[in-house]
Amino acid sequence: MKSVADKEAAMTYTQQMLDAYPGEINLDRKHLAAVIDALTTCAQVCTSCADACLSEKAEHLPMLTRCIRDDLDCAAICATTAAVLSRHTGYDANLTRAQVQAAIQATRTCGDSCGEHAGTHEHCRICSQVCQETHEALNALLPALRPDPGAGADPPSQAAPQRRG
Amino acid sequence: MKSVADKEAAMTYTQQMLDAYPGEINLDRKHLAAVIDALTTCAQVCTSCADACLSEKAEHLPMLTRCIRDDLDCAAICATTAAVLSRHTGYDANLTRAQVQAAIQATRTCGDSCGEHAGTHEHCRICSQVCQETHEALNALLPALRPDPGAGADPPSQAAPQRRG
Amino acid sequence: MKSVADKEAAMTYTQQMLDAYPGEINLDRKHLAAVIDALTTCAQVCTSCADACLSEKAEHLPMLTRCIRDDLDCAAICATTAAVLSRHTGYDANLTRAQVQAAIQATRTCGDSCGEHAGTHEHCRICSQVCQETHEALNALLPALRPDPGAGADPPSQAAPQRRG
Amino acid sequence: MKSVADKEAAMTYTQQMLDAYPGEINLDRKHLAAVIDALTTCAQVCTSCADACLSEKAEHLPMLTRCIRDDLDCAAICATTAAVLSRHTGYDANLTRAQVQAAIQATRTCGDSCGEHAGTHEHCRICSQVCQETHEALNALLPALRPDPGAGADPPSQAAPQRRG
Repeated sequence: MKSVADKEAAMTYTQQMLDAYPGEINLDRKHLAAVIDALTTCAQVCTSCADACLSEKAEHLPMLTRCIRDDLDCAAICATTAAVLSRHTGYDANLTRAQVQAAIQATRTCGDSCGEHAGTHEHCRICSQVCQETHEALNALLPALRPDPGAGADPPSQAAPQRRG
Repeated sequence: MKSVADKEAAMTYTQQMLDAYPGEINLDRKHLAAVIDALTTCAQVCTSCADACLSEKAEHLPMLTRCIRDDLDCAAICATTAAVLSRHTGYDANLTRAQVQAAIQATRTCGDSCGEHAGTHEHCRICSQVCQETHEALNALLPALRPDPGAGADPPSQAAPQRRG
Repeated sequence: MKSVADKEAAMTYTQQMLDAYPGEINLDRKHLAAVIDALTTCAQVCTSCADACLSEKAEHLPMLTRCIRDDLDCAAICATTAAVLSRHTGYDANLTRAQVQAAIQATRTCGDSCGEHAGTHEHCRICSQVCQETHEALNALLPALRPDPGAGADPPSQAAPQRRG
Repeated sequence: MKSVADKEAAMTYTQQMLDAYPGEINLDRKHLAAVIDALTTCAQVCTSCADACLSEKAEHLPMLTRCIRDDLDCAAICATTAAVLSRHTGYDANLTRAQVQAAIQATRTCGDSCGEHAGTHEHCRICSQVCQETHEALNALLPALRPDPGAGADPPSQAAPQRRG
C-alpha cells in the first residue's frame, strides 16, 4: 500500500503547480496535468526528431524534408498550447479551444508524417507514437473546454473568466 | 519617382526571404509578408505590454492581471503562427488554417482586454491597436488558406504539399 | 529484479530519442537527457508560477511583479536551452556553452526571486526548488561542453561539428 | 521639415512601447528598440532560411544540414533575447548580459554557417547579412548592460532592479 509521501512523490511538478494555484480551475486538474505533460513531451520529441532527421544519410534526406517541417511546426504549437493550458487567470474558453484545436491538427499532421518513416527510422516511430498519444489526450480534453454557461452576458471573447475570491 | 533600388531597399527582409524561397508558395507573397510582419510585431508589443502592466502602480495591478495573461497568450500564439506561415516546405493547409484561427481568436481576446484600459494606459492603447490590425490581416488571409483542390486524393492532413521540382 | 521491458518502460522519451539519434553525441546521453528533462520541467513550472502569482490577492501583487518577470524570462530561456541541447547535428560547443550559461543565470535569478516568497506562496516554493535543481543539473553539465580538441584548426564558431558517417 | 506627426508615424511600435513604459529604463531607448527589432527580424529570417534550405535540390541538402541546425538555434535564441530585452520590470543586468552573450554567439555561428552558402543560395546570403547586422547591434549594446553601481549591497542576481515610483 502506498503511503501519502509516495503518492506526493509520484505527482509530477505540473500536478503540484495546479494544486498550488490560488484560484479556481474549471477543469479536472489531474486530466489537465496529463495533457500539459503530454504537450511538453511532444514538443521535446518533435524538436529531437527534426534534428535526428537532419543527421540521416544523404539519400534519405529528400524524403524527410516534409517530416522535418511538420516536426518544427508541431514542436512550436505544442509548446505554445502547453503554456496556454498552464494559465488559468482570466481563462478564456474560446482562445483555449482554438489553440487546442490547432494542436490537435498539428499532432495529427506530424504523427502521420513521422508514421510514414516509422519502419525506417526509430526516431520517427517514437515521434509518431508520442504525437498520437498527445492527439488523443487533446481530443479527450476538448469537450471540457466550453465557455462558462453562467457567463452568458459576456461577449464571446470574455467567456469564463476566473476571478480571485 | 522611386527607382528600382529604392523599391528593393523598401522591401522588408520577410519579403526578400519569400522571394528567395526556392519552391512554389500558394499564397500572394506580398500579402503573406505583411501578415508575418504583423504577427512578429504583435508578439513583441504584447510581450512589452505585459511587462509595462507589471510596472503600473499597485492600485492598478488587480485590474490588469487578465490583460497580462491575454498579452502572454497572444505573444506566444502570434510568434508560433508567424513561424508556421514562414514555412512552405510540405505546406499543409489544414494545420496552417487551424493555427491562423487560434491567432485570430488570440488577437481578438487580447485586443478587447487591452482596449478596456486604452484610456488609462498608453501601452494598452498601442497594444489594442496592434492586435486589431493583426486580427484584420489574419482574417484577410484566411480565405486563401484552402487545401489545394488538385490534392483531392490525399488524406486531409496531407493537403496541398509543395514538392521540389 | 527489473526486466529489460521494465527498464525500457522507465526510460523517458528524451532518453529514447537520444538513443535513436543516428550520429554521435559527444556527451553522456543519460546525463544529457536528465538536463533536458529538468529544463522542460522548469520552463513549465515557471510559466505556471507567473500565472499563479497573477491570481494572488491584490495586496500581494506589488511584491510579486519581479517574481513574475523572472518566471517569464526563466521559462523562455529554459525552453530555448532545452531545444539547443536536443540538437546534435553540427554541434557547436561555443554556442551551446553560451546558452547553457544564460540558463544557469536565469535559474539562479528566478530561484532567488521565488525563494523570497517560498514561505508565503506554495507555487513559489515549488518553482524555487525546481529552479535550483535545474541550476545544479546545468552546472554539472557545463564542464562537458568543451570544444572538440581535435577541431583545433577550425574557427571558434565551428568547433566540434558532428559529421554523419 | 518633418512634422511631429511624421516623426511619430516613423517610430516603430517597439519604440512607442518603450516610450509608454511607466518605469525607468537604464538603457538608451532608441538604441534598445533598434536591437530588439534586429533580434525579431533575425529570428524570422532564420526560421525562413531553415525552411528554404529544406526545399533546395536533393544534391544540396547534405551540405545544408548544419546551416539548418544553426538557423533553428539562432531563431530560438534571438526570439528569447528579444523578449528578455523587452522586459524592464525587475531588470537584472547579469541575466540580460548572459542571454545577450548567447545571442552574440548564435548570430556569429549562424552568420558564418549561412555565409558559406551565400554564393549559392540567396536566402543564405540574406540570412548571413541579417545575422551579422544583429551581431553588431548586440555587441554595441553589451557595454551598457552593467549592474547598477548603486546596487552594490545586493547579491549579484539582484543587480539593478527597477522599482516603481
